Amino acid sequence: MARDRREHLVQTALDLFCRDGFHATGIDRILSESGVAKMTMYKHFRSKDELILAVLRRRDEEFRNWFMRTVEGRADTPRARLICLFDVLGEWFGQTDFTGCTFINAAAEYGEADDPIHASAAEHKRLVRSYIGKLADAAGAAEPNALANALTLLIEGAITMAYVAGEKDAAVRARDAAAVLIEASLPANEGTGN
Amino acid sequence: MARDRREHLVQTALDLFCRDGFHATGIDRILSESGVAKMTMYKHFRSKDELILAVLRRRDEEFRNWFMRTVEGRADTPRARLICLFDVLGEWFGQTDFTGCTFINAAAEYGEADDPIHASAAEHKRLVRSYIGKLADAAGAAEPNALANALTLLIEGAITMAYVAGEKDAAVRARDAAAVLIEASLPANEGTGN
Repeated sequence: MARDRREHLVQTALDLFCRDGFHATGIDRILSESGVAKMTMYKHFRSKDELILAVLRRRDEEFRNWFMRTVEGRADTPRARLICLFDVLGEWFGQTDFTGCTFINAAAEYGEADDPIHASAAEHKRLVRSYIGKLADAAGAAEPNALANALTLLIEGAITMAYVAGEKDAAVRARDAAAVLIEASLPANEGTGN
Repeated sequence: MARDRREHLVQTALDLFCRDGFHATGIDRILSESGVAKMTMYKHFRSKDELILAVLRRRDEEFRNWFMRTVEGRADTPRARLICLFDVLGEWFGQTDFTGCTFINAAAEYGEADDPIHASAAEHKRLVRSYIGKLADAAGAAEPNALANALTLLIEGAITMAYVAGEKDAAVRARDAAAVLIEASLPANEGTGN
């Protein structure tokens, strides 16, 4: 039961932070939207920063699970999955509640690299890249880390152009560039299903 | 004289916003740091949002001038300048006061696409890309817009990895990927200086 209240609080805070930002969303707003008592909140989280950390952990789990599951449900081979990353990215951009990357936005407000909130955002970016590195490795890239780094840059760039510049088709442009880089990095595709 | 006070106010606000964020920086803090009277501020800017807009215009001018001037001082041909974009990017990341892209950070805090602050950030991104498009065109790219879009994605992605994930060498990785894309888009380099 206490667990349920905690989960509800974290989800409400996530929605508000995504929509209005971190500093702009006060604790009182989160409590009134969630209907959770201040004492209950402080039982779970010693401060707003602690709540933000819990929100980012939830979002990281939720987002990466959705992203990886969707990519793997759509494409069967590692090579196809590398391209599919960009299709799923485009779907995310197209969601009506797309508010950019919660982690980029959090890092924007908590600028010090050693702030735990900023560090949590950095960790999320590394986890996403690590997944891409595994796909690149499985696809037989000569330099899987280099390919993963390059594709990560295109993904992060597409997020910025989709969110900041409002260009939802940034994922398509990123996909085109990615195809050239994947082609240059992988052994010739001989239709072996790799 | 009034002009000087205004400039000083805008510069002080820019420094504070870059360091601490937009919502986290109150008007009172800006006034006390700049030594400008509240009445003087309101004579120039009707609201904090108006001050933020002036700050973003200043930053856009300052940053793009520096960026373009540096690229053009380092490299003579359009092709070389396309690569040089990434060297100058790396220099920016290496500056001790690097706090990410002011425009990405502003858009993070002002999420609505039709908020004038968000729109100003979008405009900055388009202006940067438009410069790259001119270089791509002058370099003889078959599809200058496509190349400019791809290089813009790498640049924006590198900014995120440098700022959020703290990887200052993101510019080097972006340069490597850019070299492949430029090679694939431009006519063969025959050492003609193009």
